[in-house]
Amino acid sequence: MKQLVHTPDGVRDIYGEEFLRKVFVENKIKDIIKLYGYEDIATPTFEYFDVFSKEIGTTPSKDLYKFFDKDGNTLVLRPDFTPSVARCVAKYFDEEINPIRLTYCGNTFVNNSSLQGKLKEVTEIGCELMNDSSVEADAEILNLVIETLLAGGLKDFQISVGEMNFFKGLCEYAGMDTESELLLREAISTKNSFTAHEMINSLSCDNEAKEQLNMCVNCIGNIEKISSLKEKISNERSLNAIKRLEELVEILKIYKTDSYVSFDLGMLSKYNYYTGIIFKAYTYGLGDALVKGGRYDNLLESFGSSKPAVGFVVVIDDLLMALRGQHILPDVSSEKMILEYGDSDFEDVIKNAQKLRKEGKAVTLIKRS
Amino acid sequence: MKQLVHTPDGVRDIYGEEFLRKVFVENKIKDIIKLYGYEDIATPTFEYFDVFSKEIGTTPSKDLYKFFDKDGNTLVLRPDFTPSVARCVAKYFDEEINPIRLTYCGNTFVNNSSLQGKLKEVTEIGCELMNDSSVEADAEILNLVIETLLAGGLKDFQISVGEMNFFKGLCEYAGMDTESELLLREAISTKNSFTAHEMINSLSCDNEAKEQLNMCVNCIGNIEKISSLKEKISNERSLNAIKRLEELVEILKIYKTDSYVSFDLGMLSKYNYYTGIIFKAYTYGLGDALVKGGRYDNLLESFGSSKPAVGFVVVIDDLLMALRGQHILPDVSSEKMILEYGDSDFEDVIKNAQKLRKEGKAVTLIKRS
Repeated sequence: MKQLVHTPDGVRDIYGEEFLRKVFVENKIKDIIKLYGYEDIATPTFEYFDVFSKEIGTTPSKDLYKFFDKDGNTLVLRPDFTPSVARCVAKYFDEEINPIRLTYCGNTFVNNSSLQGKLKEVTEIGCELMNDSSVEADAEILNLVIETLLAGGLKDFQISVGEMNFFKGLCEYAGMDTESELLLREAISTKNSFTAHEMINSLSCDNEAKEQLNMCVNCIGNIEKISSLKEKISNERSLNAIKRLEELVEILKIYKTDSYVSFDLGMLSKYNYYTGIIFKAYTYGLGDALVKGGRYDNLLESFGSSKPAVGFVVVIDDLLMALRGQHILPDVSSEKMILEYGDSDFEDVIKNAQKLRKEGKAVTLIKRS
Repeated sequence: MKQLVHTPDGVRDIYGEEFLRKVFVENKIKDIIKLYGYEDIATPTFEYFDVFSKEIGTTPSKDLYKFFDKDGNTLVLRPDFTPSVARCVAKYFDEEINPIRLTYCGNTFVNNSSLQGKLKEVTEIGCELMNDSSVEADAEILNLVIETLLAGGLKDFQISVGEMNFFKGLCEYAGMDTESELLLREAISTKNSFTAHEMINSLSCDNEAKEQLNMCVNCIGNIEKISSLKEKISNERSLNAIKRLEELVEILKIYKTDSYVSFDLGMLSKYNYYTGIIFKAYTYGLGDALVKGGRYDNLLESFGSSKPAVGFVVVIDDLLMALRGQHILPDVSSEKMILEYGDSDFEDVIKNAQKLRKEGKAVTLIKRS
């Protein structure tokens, strides 16, 4: 029987101070997001498989929790919110001409291998800014990432920003086919530099194109370093990508959050998901990024709508783990009065408790032993 | 592609004012529950099948959403919270000697037939008061149900209360075996009066026992009516059940919430789950109960612990449907400023927006067209 008290691997019970801290951090973040005019949306915990299919999502099918409804349709526990929010925008806001700002908070589920020791159910808060292709929108989202992490209590963190068009422009210039591009993208994005350089050097393009592609592999630094690449680049698309990053920094300077941002032009996704900026936030004590996001202008087309979009998600469980590791968890001690009662004074104690509760005080009753 | 925008039957997207109203009502209820000293707990969205098995839960196996983890274990989307909270108490609070007050808010999942038009995913808020077998605990929970519905904005509602021991005492007195008791319980609890009377009259016990059992079938009324049964009852267990209900009303009078309560001694569960009071809250415009609860002193034994318990759950979606039907939905219009910007005044507009946000005002930016 004692066996029964355990939860499955990768999911857990949250109670006591841990619960209070989680809600505290969530509320701080929700408050900030509200100030930027984002409106809440809640989507179902499970959806049709196709919403998170290979063509749309970024979670491999083998890592989705799949089951059936009574009509035999395949359902999936959402592995992330972005496809669901995109579906909602296509369904409810297709005619909207102004920017659409949506925010969500809820749990997502990834059936990863138990061996990794990762959580399979986490709480995510995220924002999507749709119907706006401008660099101002990119900047608002990046600034909001920074404000979100600050509101969550984090102090030391860094946002690493890439731009898919820089790489894509170089690939076009080198005349690479889609398959080689995909392979190279995977090598670069997994920081497999040796393989990446080898692949580039074995291409049949001219040396100038190879040299430019090689720059992608390890191009990490501040905006000055990124700007300095302009003179070495000979294609429009890559040049425009750099110019857009420069504009982005100028706007972040107005927000006064530019110091949190650095660049990594080798930050690429192995999925055909991102179409512009792509970013991750890191802090010490966490191996993985606690915020992910970017621009994905093609996603809504999968749902029959056509709208540019940029967004981010912060994993609240990761944020709390970072706060714990850095010894900066919020103080959430809750005040509660305990009133004891016996048979003789029960009526008086209840009346007193009700009076205190009317004044907003939490009161617990315990029978005198 | 347009097909993809639909959610599966019985689950839905919530946004705009509907979302705000839902959160508003949830927060009002959470605030009240906090005042009674209940502490939050969150359990995983899915658990091992055994936690909700036939022996423990009240949702038939065919109505559970089941799937597998990578080790081949059967997992289940929680159909309700009570077994999970009981599991937690057995795991984390087994040594606690004082009453344990826990509250939860989250979604539950029942794979009911699409034809019923019922929601398959709903939000529930509930309370469990464990480690306390007293009538004072029963009264606190019932009072909290009433305060919860009032806080949620409902005005006209009624709590119908039964007591399993009244019926069980009569069955014992009539010498019924477990199987006939179960069949009779089902007939009475489904308000199948004709069948119930027929079953009772065909029993092999004496007429007095039959007469008393027949009283159960349609015994609805106020505490005076219930008290008047005492002189007709000849077994201790049923008598004590009535006395306990009388004590319950005396305590609710102190809370000043007794007027919301009436009694139905034919309110029985077809499950062996409840062991004392059992109750449901009804309001007009809803076919089904929007609150369910009762005492279930044996549940924790399934998890290797032994603690009495009483609790309730309110289905937030049902509450909102009732509020809508009764035209008493809360007013939740959110204030949001819209600032327009162009290329020339962008910096000034952002600075102004940041200033307003610092003052706590929600500001949305839109590019002038």
